[in-house]
Amino acid sequence: MTSNVYDENNPFAKILRGELPSHKVYEDEHTYAFMDIMPRTDGHCLVIPKKPSRNLLDAEPETLARVMATVQKIARAAMNAFDADGLVIDQYNEAPAGQTVFHLHFHVLPRYEGVPLRPHGEKMADHAVLAEQAEKIRKELEKLAA
Amino acid sequence: MTSNVYDENNPFAKILRGELPSHKVYEDEHTYAFMDIMPRTDGHCLVIPKKPSRNLLDAEPETLARVMATVQKIARAAMNAFDADGLVIDQYNEAPAGQTVFHLHFHVLPRYEGVPLRPHGEKMADHAVLAEQAEKIRKELEKLAA
Repeated sequence: MTSNVYDENNPFAKILRGELPSHKVYEDEHTYAFMDIMPRTDGHCLVIPKKPSRNLLDAEPETLARVMATVQKIARAAMNAFDADGLVIDQYNEAPAGQTVFHLHFHVLPRYEGVPLRPHGEKMADHAVLAEQAEKIRKELEKLAA
Repeated sequence: MTSNVYDENNPFAKILRGELPSHKVYEDEHTYAFMDIMPRTDGHCLVIPKKPSRNLLDAEPETLARVMATVQKIARAAMNAFDADGLVIDQYNEAPAGQTVFHLHFHVLPRYEGVPLRPHGEKMADHAVLAEQAEKIRKELEKLAA
């Protein structure tokens, strides 16, 4: 039931090409991180490889290693930026598992004691709020790198 | 709110030392994979590093890279073994995010069209069933490695 088809016009490919805007949190040679525009929790980010992969199933192990290194950076920064109590990493493969954009991505979801996650893809966030949250994470990334 | 404490007596450390049984699916120098005994879905596996890490936040990037390479192997094998329609990867950090065992682990959750995930940690599975499922995944791993 899996597919190896990669659609060059998926939204994340467009973000990487600068054809769609995003609230950038981090970027290096191989990876890119930005705010989810329908956040399930305050500080919900996405981490993606620049190299096209549909999902985990077709990615090269080297791509996964690079993405996970960035996931960890963002996770640590987000914990500090939002004074989170914990953090969930989610990654969906194929539509029956909840994948809606077919470019490999990891969800970084800060968790707060007693606050449930909102449903996936429920409500568009205010862009001013996302911009402010992205800035908070970038500042923490700078501190952690120092 | 995070902790770097690693408890050498957590259940997964005991599994790695052979002090607790597990339905082994895969093992290499750096990683170990086994069936979750309270599966949220048929074929629910866990992948862990042998190197002690509490969770994603304190793991070395090299450890994460190795674990993800195994996660991918298990994911591909589980898709085939159970004819799954998709697959979710989940990883929890700290108790407010749902972490109950404090040794870094990734959940590999095969998904089936129209079948919801069962709640986390709900019900112990039949060991004969888990043994059979582990065997199925091991056979697929052999095929994929051939």
